[in-house]
Amino acid sequence: MTTISDVAKEANVSVATVSRVLNNHSSVRPETYERVYKAIEKLSFEPNMSARNLRRNETRVILIVAPNITNPYYAHILSGIGDAASEYGYSALIFNTNGEETREKESLDMLKKKKADGAILLSIDIDSLWLKEYADKYPIVHCSEYTKDLNIPKVSIDNYKASLDVMEYIISLGHKRIATITSSNNYISTHERLEGYKDSLEKHGINLKEDYIASANADYSFKSGKAAAYKLLQGENRPTAIFCISDTIALGAIIAAKELGIKVPEDLTIIGFDDVDDTTMFHPYITTISQPCYDIGREAFKILFGIINKGKDNKKVVLPHKFIIRESSAPIS
Amino acid sequence: MTTISDVAKEANVSVATVSRVLNNHSSVRPETYERVYKAIEKLSFEPNMSARNLRRNETRVILIVAPNITNPYYAHILSGIGDAASEYGYSALIFNTNGEETREKESLDMLKKKKADGAILLSIDIDSLWLKEYADKYPIVHCSEYTKDLNIPKVSIDNYKASLDVMEYIISLGHKRIATITSSNNYISTHERLEGYKDSLEKHGINLKEDYIASANADYSFKSGKAAAYKLLQGENRPTAIFCISDTIALGAIIAAKELGIKVPEDLTIIGFDDVDDTTMFHPYITTISQPCYDIGREAFKILFGIINKGKDNKKVVLPHKFIIRESSAPIS
Repeated sequence: MTTISDVAKEANVSVATVSRVLNNHSSVRPETYERVYKAIEKLSFEPNMSARNLRRNETRVILIVAPNITNPYYAHILSGIGDAASEYGYSALIFNTNGEETREKESLDMLKKKKADGAILLSIDIDSLWLKEYADKYPIVHCSEYTKDLNIPKVSIDNYKASLDVMEYIISLGHKRIATITSSNNYISTHERLEGYKDSLEKHGINLKEDYIASANADYSFKSGKAAAYKLLQGENRPTAIFCISDTIALGAIIAAKELGIKVPEDLTIIGFDDVDDTTMFHPYITTISQPCYDIGREAFKILFGIINKGKDNKKVVLPHKFIIRESSAPIS
Repeated sequence: MTTISDVAKEANVSVATVSRVLNNHSSVRPETYERVYKAIEKLSFEPNMSARNLRRNETRVILIVAPNITNPYYAHILSGIGDAASEYGYSALIFNTNGEETREKESLDMLKKKKADGAILLSIDIDSLWLKEYADKYPIVHCSEYTKDLNIPKVSIDNYKASLDVMEYIISLGHKRIATITSSNNYISTHERLEGYKDSLEKHGINLKEDYIASANADYSFKSGKAAAYKLLQGENRPTAIFCISDTIALGAIIAAKELGIKVPEDLTIIGFDDVDDTTMFHPYITTISQPCYDIGREAFKILFGIINKGKDNKKVVLPHKFIIRESSAPIS
């Protein structure tokens, strides 16, 4: 059987240090934590968890709070969180809230009840000020979406900048009648992408037309994206480009265009967001913004781990996005 | 503040009965349990959970063990489990295993460590005999997929019968060159659907051709479905019908046919399985088998609740499927 001494030897630290790591003393440096945990993993060392948990009042469980986990956008984020959690000896459990505030609170009440050590919130309304009460007391990290006016640590891309990138590209192709399909949800990413859309038009002296802004459902569903595109494409003076804030919406827009006999990209440029598998399902493959989802997930766990073990942190991490040009966009004809 | 007497009055039982329910005595009938819990919900009665949990050693947490939760098939199952759990005062947390046995075991070790009261397994290999050790000791229910030779309670449809229904229909349309796209996973549903395919051919005196059986990835991905269809459709004597064991695979097959200039359904009938949203994404809408996913989820929770509170149960529940004819199937031309 592996002993605590074996772990100390493997990690090249003292037994006391291993013990401090196991008991989450705040005096251990993160690098040392990591080295010791790797040794624990490697040697399959199992401290007497239940006794330790009682003593330390820790669960080694973290919660991932998500509104609708079958959204393909979450796949790699969940892998990133799950892999990192597992490396550090934590179980990452997902709490599916359907986007309901009652369930979001219910999930965080588990922190109160000491059933989890911390939580990563995947999507939360921009104005969820009720979160403050929890974030002041418990380890909480925002991942992708975040509340605007609370000082809670977070990981995301720069959605505003990504939106500007998309719009600069569309405008550089010569388009002037540019529409957008946004979402009826209240996420910061939705707000910032719409701001980017509006600010780009203004910067280039293109008048904003309210009827060029359509909205899909809160969950970015294919059907609602398609319906929104129908509305845009059947109006007068229809747009020659549509910036969709998700790939699934973009897919809906492509199908709508197809049914209406409008050719993509010859007569209509369509851009998506996220780079999920849907983008290369069929031709035209979708031009889109790619997010480093796996890394976003890993980073969120690491920040949470830091807070759980070292206390408060207000880290704000912004990871880079990429713009991927495929087949659904073309210069104005 | 609501008291235990208020709950007793509302549920029309004695205070002692409410107390027995709260303490999960096995002497309470299920109907009474349900009535008392409804009263608790209605009156928002909150017993002192943490004290009770310590005493009873219960967590009011159940685990949902899933391989790949972004598979759209799981959306309604997860809602069904989550809603039922919430009604009974439980938190349902999802443990994402990526289909790895180590992680499946890790999830069930949480039962050992008293971090959850029971588990619903969403997808598990047909031959996971290692499960016996856990199922003998802890409340576990199979949902959709199950091990063949273990006496663990389960909820699913009759996959073999559903497969026969599909095949009878295809054969009734006059098709004789019938292929199938199965999956490389080792789930009972995969085995039973393939058995149904083979037995139907035999029953109708149609020779089984090994090269009419192609396989998609374990996770039923669109891309692997498309690749499998390419293989079938580029071979000699190509099939006039393909029975796909998932809708996403069927979608891949339709795109493959399209790229190869084969018309669906005129020159090729394609059938899916599950009835996820993908089936009506674009024309031709996909003929498929519909599963009562929400009810499957609810039922799985109810059985688990029974085991947690009343002890061992070997219930096997089979819920009815439906066959939905849309546009991707037609009589042989």
